[in-house]
Amino acid sequence: MNNITMALNADELILSALREDITSEDITTNSVMREYQLGEVELICKQDGVIAGLDVFKRTFELLDSKTEVTFTKKDGDTVKNGDKIGVVRGDIRVLLSGERTALNYLQRMSGIATYTRSIADLLKSSKTKLLDTRKTTPNMRVFEKYAVKVGGGYNHRYNLSDGILLKDNHIGAAGGVKEAVQMAKEYAPFVRKIEIEVENLDMLKEALDAGADIIMLDNMSVEDMKEAVKLVSGKAETECSGNVTKENVERLVDIGVDYISSGALTHSSPILDLSLKNLHAI
Amino acid sequence: MNNITMALNADELILSALREDITSEDITTNSVMREYQLGEVELICKQDGVIAGLDVFKRTFELLDSKTEVTFTKKDGDTVKNGDKIGVVRGDIRVLLSGERTALNYLQRMSGIATYTRSIADLLKSSKTKLLDTRKTTPNMRVFEKYAVKVGGGYNHRYNLSDGILLKDNHIGAAGGVKEAVQMAKEYAPFVRKIEIEVENLDMLKEALDAGADIIMLDNMSVEDMKEAVKLVSGKAETECSGNVTKENVERLVDIGVDYISSGALTHSSPILDLSLKNLHAI
Amino acid sequence: MNNITMALNADELILSALREDITSEDITTNSVMREYQLGEVELICKQDGVIAGLDVFKRTFELLDSKTEVTFTKKDGDTVKNGDKIGVVRGDIRVLLSGERTALNYLQRMSGIATYTRSIADLLKSSKTKLLDTRKTTPNMRVFEKYAVKVGGGYNHRYNLSDGILLKDNHIGAAGGVKEAVQMAKEYAPFVRKIEIEVENLDMLKEALDAGADIIMLDNMSVEDMKEAVKLVSGKAETECSGNVTKENVERLVDIGVDYISSGALTHSSPILDLSLKNLHAI
Amino acid sequence: MNNITMALNADELILSALREDITSEDITTNSVMREYQLGEVELICKQDGVIAGLDVFKRTFELLDSKTEVTFTKKDGDTVKNGDKIGVVRGDIRVLLSGERTALNYLQRMSGIATYTRSIADLLKSSKTKLLDTRKTTPNMRVFEKYAVKVGGGYNHRYNLSDGILLKDNHIGAAGGVKEAVQMAKEYAPFVRKIEIEVENLDMLKEALDAGADIIMLDNMSVEDMKEAVKLVSGKAETECSGNVTKENVERLVDIGVDYISSGALTHSSPILDLSLKNLHAI
Amino acid sequence: MNNITMALNADELILSALREDITSEDITTNSVMREYQLGEVELICKQDGVIAGLDVFKRTFELLDSKTEVTFTKKDGDTVKNGDKIGVVRGDIRVLLSGERTALNYLQRMSGIATYTRSIADLLKSSKTKLLDTRKTTPNMRVFEKYAVKVGGGYNHRYNLSDGILLKDNHIGAAGGVKEAVQMAKEYAPFVRKIEIEVENLDMLKEALDAGADIIMLDNMSVEDMKEAVKLVSGKAETECSGNVTKENVERLVDIGVDYISSGALTHSSPILDLSLKNLHAI
Amino acid sequence: MNNITMALNADELILSALREDITSEDITTNSVMREYQLGEVELICKQDGVIAGLDVFKRTFELLDSKTEVTFTKKDGDTVKNGDKIGVVRGDIRVLLSGERTALNYLQRMSGIATYTRSIADLLKSSKTKLLDTRKTTPNMRVFEKYAVKVGGGYNHRYNLSDGILLKDNHIGAAGGVKEAVQMAKEYAPFVRKIEIEVENLDMLKEALDAGADIIMLDNMSVEDMKEAVKLVSGKAETECSGNVTKENVERLVDIGVDYISSGALTHSSPILDLSLKNLHAI
Repeated sequence: MNNITMALNADELILSALREDITSEDITTNSVMREYQLGEVELICKQDGVIAGLDVFKRTFELLDSKTEVTFTKKDGDTVKNGDKIGVVRGDIRVLLSGERTALNYLQRMSGIATYTRSIADLLKSSKTKLLDTRKTTPNMRVFEKYAVKVGGGYNHRYNLSDGILLKDNHIGAAGGVKEAVQMAKEYAPFVRKIEIEVENLDMLKEALDAGADIIMLDNMSVEDMKEAVKLVSGKAETECSGNVTKENVERLVDIGVDYISSGALTHSSPILDLSLKNLHAI
Repeated sequence: MNNITMALNADELILSALREDITSEDITTNSVMREYQLGEVELICKQDGVIAGLDVFKRTFELLDSKTEVTFTKKDGDTVKNGDKIGVVRGDIRVLLSGERTALNYLQRMSGIATYTRSIADLLKSSKTKLLDTRKTTPNMRVFEKYAVKVGGGYNHRYNLSDGILLKDNHIGAAGGVKEAVQMAKEYAPFVRKIEIEVENLDMLKEALDAGADIIMLDNMSVEDMKEAVKLVSGKAETECSGNVTKENVERLVDIGVDYISSGALTHSSPILDLSLKNLHAI
Repeated sequence: MNNITMALNADELILSALREDITSEDITTNSVMREYQLGEVELICKQDGVIAGLDVFKRTFELLDSKTEVTFTKKDGDTVKNGDKIGVVRGDIRVLLSGERTALNYLQRMSGIATYTRSIADLLKSSKTKLLDTRKTTPNMRVFEKYAVKVGGGYNHRYNLSDGILLKDNHIGAAGGVKEAVQMAKEYAPFVRKIEIEVENLDMLKEALDAGADIIMLDNMSVEDMKEAVKLVSGKAETECSGNVTKENVERLVDIGVDYISSGALTHSSPILDLSLKNLHAI
Repeated sequence: MNNITMALNADELILSALREDITSEDITTNSVMREYQLGEVELICKQDGVIAGLDVFKRTFELLDSKTEVTFTKKDGDTVKNGDKIGVVRGDIRVLLSGERTALNYLQRMSGIATYTRSIADLLKSSKTKLLDTRKTTPNMRVFEKYAVKVGGGYNHRYNLSDGILLKDNHIGAAGGVKEAVQMAKEYAPFVRKIEIEVENLDMLKEALDAGADIIMLDNMSVEDMKEAVKLVSGKAETECSGNVTKENVERLVDIGVDYISSGALTHSSPILDLSLKNLHAI
Repeated sequence: MNNITMALNADELILSALREDITSEDITTNSVMREYQLGEVELICKQDGVIAGLDVFKRTFELLDSKTEVTFTKKDGDTVKNGDKIGVVRGDIRVLLSGERTALNYLQRMSGIATYTRSIADLLKSSKTKLLDTRKTTPNMRVFEKYAVKVGGGYNHRYNLSDGILLKDNHIGAAGGVKEAVQMAKEYAPFVRKIEIEVENLDMLKEALDAGADIIMLDNMSVEDMKEAVKLVSGKAETECSGNVTKENVERLVDIGVDYISSGALTHSSPILDLSLKNLHAI
Repeated sequence: MNNITMALNADELILSALREDITSEDITTNSVMREYQLGEVELICKQDGVIAGLDVFKRTFELLDSKTEVTFTKKDGDTVKNGDKIGVVRGDIRVLLSGERTALNYLQRMSGIATYTRSIADLLKSSKTKLLDTRKTTPNMRVFEKYAVKVGGGYNHRYNLSDGILLKDNHIGAAGGVKEAVQMAKEYAPFVRKIEIEVENLDMLKEALDAGADIIMLDNMSVEDMKEAVKLVSGKAETECSGNVTKENVERLVDIGVDYISSGALTHSSPILDLSLKNLHAI
């Protein structure tokens, strides 16, 4: 994860997560370790997968004590196997124990997303179609979860409501039609935004193309209609296919020829990747 | 969710989540709806489950515009069915559209946790054993996720490192033994804390009992050993069984007779409950 | 200004500005007015121009005391004349006095920007060229200043570094060339971003077109070269002309035929519009 | 700028400004520079003027990455000429590019204020009269703008409503008269505050002197009346002349003999000083 | 306490204090009262004294639930007697119970300060000397404690290091002498500040007068020397006497004739005034 | 004080206290010391007592300037005597002067609490009874004050409303009786909480024992009744005696045999310990 993003956007959230876990002090650790003691602990994989979030894991300990040293033998995006030792945390043992849960809560979730994303992205490898995330992220986790999608081989859709246009049925209704919606967005939004519009059938698709939409989302259309849609579009816009896409059901979409498939499941349904800290010892 | 908890602890996090999604403005909505327009939208279930987080859902819209009215026909903990209409949001249509995703991101995740918790808690109904959560929550989501566990019929373990003692192997090692660890915790911690200690075998268990531990966690012990442990304890302490408990594997633990079973999966692996906003219309 | 933008992004900044002006209390006002006294004061223009920021002005008083009532006879974007009475603030006189300076500091600056923007936008009216702002805004004022540009008839360029791609000379150098830069951006950035690239001559322009850039910024090129550039582009991309554009020097650019002209002066050099609160009286 | 002021009051504002510009990441820079690369860039003047805000410029880069080194050949208050190279920023090239705009937005505005202030202060050099700023500063910029006024050779009036007494017409009206207003302020305010009162004619002036005001502001009085006022005061109080003072109209006030002239234009109408970062190169 | 001060400066601190006391929820209250129940509780004095902080007490409950109604039969500054019922809090009983401690912690401390201040101020009544507070306040309590001093009949010295000049021995040493110190302060500080200087003997006093100091602090001088000092000053400056002043030792200072006596004990050593909430009942 | 507690919980409060004292700058110090000057100052005791808060004192200076070096010859909990030199602060003299008051405000109050606590704890030494604090702490000072109590030889009661159960009369009333209250708390609260209940007479005590309360608070009972109560409890629960306990009246409670005596006076009525910074000199 980029250092600037960490400093400006992630640090505050990590600190808030640490404060969620430590209101006053870690009373268990402080009961039995009343003085500074240098120690080390190992980061171990307990499941096969793709690792993501190592910098966040590291930063969690550094925010507790800037003198903590965290080193890794893997980097984000690497494949890891059950039993792999992928890092070492060295510092005040009290810091290692007090930061463990929060650091792992981030790393497990981010690695879970990367692992799940990789598994779907691999299914799309034979096609030109790319895998996209959505805004169905966990509250206050977006910067971490969207990064994990990229680490897993996916691509990011818009970051939020402010930096991308996506005209859905309600927006089209309010505008009075596809053409009017595209026109109003072109007029209102910063000109650096592409205009994306959701269509439900081939008629709406043609209207959208005529109106000059940059991206067309095919929403819950049949596979046949989507194939027809891709032909109609024929490079005049980018195409995105959307609707409850999971690892189990993505294969029917591989040959359609859309530019993008988006899946909310990447961020709302990935199981975590099991990781733990082991072999703590004084040094 | 309690109003005081909402005001003191949840509002800030919900606002932060809204800001994550709206950096400057919702450009799509504002492109096509430039003026206030009163409208309504329905909250619809798309999956069977247990609903949790309705107050958080409501509060999300109120934080955008205090004049938004949100009413429900269900309450937290109720069973919901695919197709159920369980609420109505009424207010400025721009507020309904701009708040939709964040409100649903909370509600889907909380309801997913309640649904999964209920499914395991139901398996334990025939026994005296209660189901507990852990600290394996999503960063900055603990206040919401622990609440959802209760809604689903689970019980809360300690909230964080400051309000509960749990002596694990590393703490015992640092203290020099089970007896010393319990002693040091009794001496150091606020006297209102119960002392919980993790044991791996029956010898440690006996030591823990002798030392006066209040709660004994049986960590990754065999079913036979746990049954033996429960006999040995015989009411002199509370017992908790722990270790990768999921809906799939919990049944072997039902008859052991422990007071509590804790499961990290409740908060780190529950799939979301699918919900959506439908039938937006001006009024 | 949109209510949601106000709640999520502006309120905090306005409160921070109020705290900048009131560390403990307004000692002058509190010296002479020790009790609540209902009163009114009028908002008067002291210069001709375009008004912008009325909601921010209003919100400033409401944040001090939610019972303050502020009404206007003009709306953002309206032309105002020296001597016009354009609003009334009614509430506790102490609130009127303590909030006056901060409310006016916002309104004068925003109206100044709208007025200056309008004056340049009017010069471009005969052409198809639109006027754009830049990121040369006052720190912690961007959400207000970009809004004022729109009120004045300008258009917004990207909001910040995260929501728009603009490849400048240093980026091109780092990438190894125009083609490589465009390619790397397409690969890395969310696919909803248009790719803009800055070119200094016609050769770079051709390269940029070949690489598939969406927007081409003509940076400090001669008028002749820009005319030639527009011909070469011929609708295959959007064009933006940039470089120290002010009201004094914009006219030479009117006939070039670019889609956009951007001007940092809109936000960094607009003089304020003089406004004041007059005729305070108890009621 | 003082280090303590920087740590306590400026850092938060600079960070907020950086976050305004970087919501998630600098996507352009990160597209083309995916790894750390040490580099340097030069700070160049593009206009003659007075430099102010070098520490703020430096701090902006340090807040992004504490390892960035920024060195200057000029110091705040020095005269600079078009073409002068006045500093070097050395660090991760991504930091140099991502921090550039925010750092310059501060430095250009602060230097603009210092330059404009110096130009008026120079006109007052032959007299004993000093130039003062006002509270007409840009919201959330006061600590920077008041500092820039001092760098330019001006003096600071009160910092805000809490640390200085200034009784204006409305306060006098509420109190029931000049004498009563001064009396109430003496009674209410911390005794370390001087009492300043605004007068519009010579009668009010006499009343104010009798009441024991410490400072008398001559508000929009004729030059003749102000000369008479200065005679009447004759050292019994300090005098301040106020009312739309700019570089263009200040000269008529030079010989009046007041102690201070205050000008809102210093902070609300100074044009920026043009500066830029040039010659970025890897090292 | 002024409403604007409350909104801008006190609310955040009160909220922070409430969060200090309620990390997740009030588990005791929520255990036994699971639903809304309207109730009332009375605010009772358990000691004689001066009441101060009623608005802060009220605001604490309102921040938990804006519908809570708090009414008083006394106002800040009133004398109260053991047994007096001075107010009623009406609202959700859970709010009354959860807010009780924080509300009383503020009110007891503020009333303690007002009571102690009043007791010393009364001893000074026969003289022209006024009683001042200092900066020896409890961290994050200054806005409340300085207000309580005023309620008790004392006067406020400077609010903080930014809004008053007080040249002590170390400053004088750094400047090179009394005269130089006064001169440097006049040159550097905003001109609305009075210059106060601490002197230890009559020679320094004379120097300070010659240098034009506005206020002279007589620091740990003998009563005789202070009397002599007052004669020497003879209205040319204000005088302040300082040094471990308490209720027990203030009387020897009454006849000296200084303008002010300052006492750190007002804020760092006042015992609290005992108050409690009684007779809670549902209604 | 633990480093993690400092980083997560104390730093923000210390910074807030520093900002309370320095709104813009320390104008006195900056008037006379315009450049960096290395210096030292000594921390001197002016009263006998127990020192507590040295890390907070040190951290205050470090937050102003991380290069400040603070060294001590005593550690928290040590006895100090009037005249003892217990530390040295070395750094920019401006930092030493600007941080002095805030650093001492913390250290004096914390040491006052430790001193007072020690004086009562010593009176209890001959018994098995331990001394407890309460939630009657100064707002926003709890983390410091509870730590000081421990340093002085006391023990901490619950930290706040979220981490301990204490059923008082109102809770018992709402629940419908002692038995019901205990039952509801056991059912609702995290199982790691002990249940404490307040009883006013021996009948309630018996009920509480029968209901399985973990801790019984004897509230304002006579010494005889408390002795009887201790006999009745006879190890089946822990006992706490409460009610206006001070140094003056604690001795009558020494022989009762309760496990704990709690005293609000420890945190709300301890006089400060007088300390000061002396002998500032350049080096």
